[in-house]
Formats: sequence, C-alpha cells, structure tokens
Amino acid sequence: MKRLLWNSITTLRFYSSSSQNVLKTGHVLKQARIFSNSDIIEYSKLTNDSNPLHFDLERPKNVGFADLPVPGMLIASLFPWIIASDFPGAVYVKQTLEFRSPVYCGEEITGEVHASNIRQMKEKYMAKFITKCFKDGGVLVIDGEATAILPTLAMKQT
Amino acid sequence: MKRLLWNSITTLRFYSSSSQNVLKTGHVLKQARIFSNSDIIEYSKLTNDSNPLHFDLERPKNVGFADLPVPGMLIASLFPWIIASDFPGAVYVKQTLEFRSPVYCGEEITGEVHASNIRQMKEKYMAKFITKCFKDGGVLVIDGEATAILPTLAMKQT
Repeated sequence: MKRLLWNSITTLRFYSSSSQNVLKTGHVLKQARIFSNSDIIEYSKLTNDSNPLHFDLERPKNVGFADLPVPGMLIASLFPWIIASDFPGAVYVKQTLEFRSPVYCGEEITGEVHASNIRQMKEKYMAKFITKCFKDGGVLVIDGEATAILPTLAMKQT
Repeated sequence: MKRLLWNSITTLRFYSSSSQNVLKTGHVLKQARIFSNSDIIEYSKLTNDSNPLHFDLERPKNVGFADLPVPGMLIASLFPWIIASDFPGAVYVKQTLEFRSPVYCGEEITGEVHASNIRQMKEKYMAKFITKCFKDGGVLVIDGEATAILPTLAMKQT
C-alpha cells in the first residue's frame, strides 16, 4: 500500500496486490478526493458552465438532490488523473460515464481504475480499464470504462 | 442565429433552424471555444492531473502529436456547458467519449449537441444527444453521446 498526500486534498493511493511494478490485468488503482465549493466555482470559471444546478439550491431540490451536486465531468476527471499518476504520458482514447448518484461538497469519493485488458502495440500498450467511483458506504457514483495508450506498463514509483 | 460573447473566450451559439423555442429531435446546439495554455494549467490545478503529456513537449512528440494537447476531459466539458446553457438545471445522466484527434492551444473547436431522442418523464424530459466536437476543416476531435434530464423543453432565451 502506498500513500500520497498532495496539496491539501485528501488523497489515498493503493493497489490490489503487493507486486505492482508492472501493470497486469486485474490490478486496481485508486485515489480518494473531497471536492469543495471553491472547486465548483473554479470548474465553472474554467468551462463557462454556470448551470444553476450547482449554484442555486432550489434547482437540485427540484430533482430530489439533498444539496448542490459537484459537476459530473469534474468528478470524472479522477479517472485520467489516476491513470496518468501511474503512467505519465498516457493518452486518453475513450471514456464512458454513467452518473448514478450525486456527490456533494465535503463527501469523500474514491475513484477506482481496474485494468481489464492490455494489448501491446509496437512499443506502446493499449489498456482498457473499468472505471468506477464510490462514496461512503459503497454508493456507486460513476460507472464506466476507459481506454488509454500507455507508454510503458512500468508503474511510476512515488 | 444568436451570438453570445462570454468573457474573453470566443463563443458562438447557433441553431439549425429558426423556430427554436422548444427542443425537438433533430435540433443541433453549438458552441465554439479556443483553449489557452493557462486553461491547461488551471485544469491541472483543479483536477491534480499533471500528466506531462500536457506540459513536456517531448511526451506528445513521442506519440506523434505536433504540440501539447488540451486534456480531453477539459474539451468534453463543452457538452454539458452547451446543454446547460439552453436548459439551466439539466442533470447529466450519461456521456460517452471517443477522443479522435488532439486539440492544441489556440485552435478553435466547435462542440455540437444533436438531439436524437426526447422522452417525457412526468414533469421532466429525458433527452439523448449525439455529441461531437470538430476543429478547423471539419476534423472530428471527440465523438460520443450524452443523456440528460431536462426540467423543460423550452430553451433559454439569451
């Protein structure tokens, strides 16, 4: 198990087995994070997306949410972060996302990237991952799959 | 045709026909944008994703890219932005993304959201969209589909 503290964000990195120098099918990479209100504001500035669902409490209440939800695409950024943390230079090819449950500011979520298929392509590797995000109690937040081109299967040592 | 200027970002909003008060199958919503180096830096700060693919020119050159590419998930944020611009309060349900071509800083890209199916659910609407992003010359950058719950089919007048 490896732990990585990065800035003030709660981050936990660990793997499903102890021999983790080289990615193999079945390996699971994880990172945890808590989003804040200021993250939502920064996301809105960056993307121009000022959907009142994330700023006006009446809107989420109208759809049965308990509070202002974190934008789904911001949560989904956990997956390329997790992959690039272990495989710097990774190139994203595909991502599917099903947004199953809202995430509110202050809730700890954990992104999981499970290697499901690895194929060599000359000097690079095409890797498929099952990508899931959970919050406390095992509630599934995002379900999906990703495909990335990895420059190597050797995982970055942190 | 409607034009919307937002901050310093090049933004163009237009629709495929003139009677656009209510969303119908076949309608296409579009927005254009140019990403800058500072957008990539802000995305990295917000998401913790410091993939050198976006910062160290040797990395993209190794995979045949001409320059530092904009992160794909940042480009994909155009789609919820486009949908929420016309349908404030929209809730994202699904998104699929195939990253077909790199986008470099300074390149104008256009996100297109094409309504392919609309289904009433009590007082709300489940809408499916074909989501594509192009750059100059019609080069396809992202291909995919999105599903969102819309509070109304009446499009916001800007």
